Amino acid sequence: MAKIAICGYGIVGSGVAEVIAENADSIAKNAAEDVSIKYILDSRDFPGDPFEEYIIHDFSIIENDPEISVVIETIGGVGIAYEFTKRALKSGKSVVSSNKELVATKGHELIAIAKEKNLNYLFEASVGGGIPIIRPITQCLAANKIDEVYGILNGTTNYILTEMIQNDASFEDALLEAQAKGFAEKDPTADIEGHDAARKICILADLCFGKHVNPADVKAQGIKGVSSADVEYAKRLNCKIKLLGRAIRTGRDTATAYVSPHLVSKSSLLSNVDGVMNGIVVHGNALGDTMFYGAGAGKRPTASAVVADVIDAVKHVKARKYLDWDDAPDGYFTDSSYLASRWYVRAATSLQQIGWAFGKVNFVSYTGAAADEYAFATEVNDENTMRKLTSGMTVRSMFRILD
Amino acid sequence: MAKIAICGYGIVGSGVAEVIAENADSIAKNAAEDVSIKYILDSRDFPGDPFEEYIIHDFSIIENDPEISVVIETIGGVGIAYEFTKRALKSGKSVVSSNKELVATKGHELIAIAKEKNLNYLFEASVGGGIPIIRPITQCLAANKIDEVYGILNGTTNYILTEMIQNDASFEDALLEAQAKGFAEKDPTADIEGHDAARKICILADLCFGKHVNPADVKAQGIKGVSSADVEYAKRLNCKIKLLGRAIRTGRDTATAYVSPHLVSKSSLLSNVDGVMNGIVVHGNALGDTMFYGAGAGKRPTASAVVADVIDAVKHVKARKYLDWDDAPDGYFTDSSYLASRWYVRAATSLQQIGWAFGKVNFVSYTGAAADEYAFATEVNDENTMRKLTSGMTVRSMFRILD
Repeated sequence: MAKIAICGYGIVGSGVAEVIAENADSIAKNAAEDVSIKYILDSRDFPGDPFEEYIIHDFSIIENDPEISVVIETIGGVGIAYEFTKRALKSGKSVVSSNKELVATKGHELIAIAKEKNLNYLFEASVGGGIPIIRPITQCLAANKIDEVYGILNGTTNYILTEMIQNDASFEDALLEAQAKGFAEKDPTADIEGHDAARKICILADLCFGKHVNPADVKAQGIKGVSSADVEYAKRLNCKIKLLGRAIRTGRDTATAYVSPHLVSKSSLLSNVDGVMNGIVVHGNALGDTMFYGAGAGKRPTASAVVADVIDAVKHVKARKYLDWDDAPDGYFTDSSYLASRWYVRAATSLQQIGWAFGKVNFVSYTGAAADEYAFATEVNDENTMRKLTSGMTVRSMFRILD
Repeated sequence: MAKIAICGYGIVGSGVAEVIAENADSIAKNAAEDVSIKYILDSRDFPGDPFEEYIIHDFSIIENDPEISVVIETIGGVGIAYEFTKRALKSGKSVVSSNKELVATKGHELIAIAKEKNLNYLFEASVGGGIPIIRPITQCLAANKIDEVYGILNGTTNYILTEMIQNDASFEDALLEAQAKGFAEKDPTADIEGHDAARKICILADLCFGKHVNPADVKAQGIKGVSSADVEYAKRLNCKIKLLGRAIRTGRDTATAYVSPHLVSKSSLLSNVDGVMNGIVVHGNALGDTMFYGAGAGKRPTASAVVADVIDAVKHVKARKYLDWDDAPDGYFTDSSYLASRWYVRAATSLQQIGWAFGKVNFVSYTGAAADEYAFATEVNDENTMRKLTSGMTVRSMFRILD
């Protein structure tokens, strides 16, 4: 019988309790022993809740209970979640987390503590919600050198963009609808501005390339600048606009990562990842491209990933799993502005100026387009060159095209 | 230093040798020790081959060498592959296999031997080539009750169907092209008639539902009966024809599995899995749908999956991984003809007869369609009912619609 504690009884934490209760039999079979909840830590009380009796308010009860072998951290943020994780590991308990912010910023340090104590620090749920991605990368693709990982990492923004593309909604209306449906938070900043996706691409880059990428280094451009006009022009280029997180090896000992809207060809599988779903593409030198698709958020999908980690932690008490990466040497992280790609540009300017700057480009238009602007797709350039070439134009949108 | 032996130096076996040599550094890092090839068993000699010096012809050399900890079986079939696997396990060596026929028919018995010896018998490459699927199902989805697993499991037939859909090729021409490009074997029977997909869906059903499904019980309908007319009619129903293997829980203690062509809505992600690629959808009660996509065959992708298993076997010498399933009780496997779905029918018959049999149906047509036939989509019926309802018609094609 493995006894566990859940810290943070919010959406994910309560989903974890629910899944553990509901699938107790199959979990016991997979973990080779029963898994039962002993404590649920939260600052609030939950009168009438089915798990009310487990609620406690003092972390030291968990910390000092030798019966607890696994602590689940579903608090979020880098405040008490960080403190509790350290204390749990130091008191000899494996920790399972769904907290992407903590993993992206402090994961390296927490893994080092877990390693020293011969414990597990597992975080499958931190990227892609319920989609199996962390384990496939670290185990199934272990025979590959991974060159690139990218994808739709945030369900809220993908929902908004899908509404804009499929139902001609404006950004504002689509956001309101996402909030009404519970797909976006009241303060949607972290999603809309790309910070959530940035944390996730950092974790993916850490695992795929083996060196730490600091979220503070990663440029995140969100979807606020995507207009209905961009959606229409993109359609004429046979593309959909998708917010992508990307991490790419740029040399033997260098890599870059960034988040920004991209034009993605409709013929690609990734462009068909719609609504709140996530899709993550990994390119390995032996395997080629592989894609992982599923619910990137939500109570039960995320709980599914957390509980899979719990099962692994229970089975591997005192036998560490191999999630780890190194500190990055100076110069490892290169700015994404050096990365070349084709670009989509929408700008108020003259045909002459476009011709001078770019030579021949692929113009697109649609009925109802603004009369004072041009939209076009360029050849391959890096971002710095693009800034120079468009410096005399009133650029309304400029997004990379994923090739 | 882990010493391994490869049995069978064909496409996959030589890919394994290549990937182990090429990615030696990252493999050593992931396995926590160097992995090196000591023997390659094959009946042939390979003069001039970079691995020529490792070639041997006598399995007992491997069997009797205590230095060998992992044996890779890439021979195929259930003849000597079966014998060598048993002998390897009995002599204390873990075995990694890409052999779907052996795993589907004898996997249960081989796992039992591995279990008794506290060894690993791993076979990630047996389904979906390089796509991580076995490990995600057994580990990442361990917190789920899986209700259904289905997908495009055979790259050869998917290539042929894609050619028919995208380039209006006939079945015969598409098959010739697939053979010319090396995507189909000279004798393509196992692929074309659905036997390959049937073996794979059995392995998936074994792992997802935990009970053995015998490939001999699984009805396999291949793609020989798919005509250009079916492709055209399907387009009018906004569908693509895809060969799917499906396994479904049909009750508390019953399940079914089968292989047949389906009409798959173009709006689904699965329908966009084209060419030689594979896509596998798993539905779990906590996670919902998740899809795994990638190269389902090919030298290096398959080798990638084999070597990932080798790394796992090296790391888990004397610590079994948890791949296993039980014998199926009597009555567990139910015939797929009881499974209800909507159907696409193409038949030479009269409007009246269709009306009598089905009431209102959704007719489709296209310019150039045969004058003596009707094509339509029905409401939900099981297969037995469909056979009765169409008994007076000359049925040219009848495929399920995936909803």
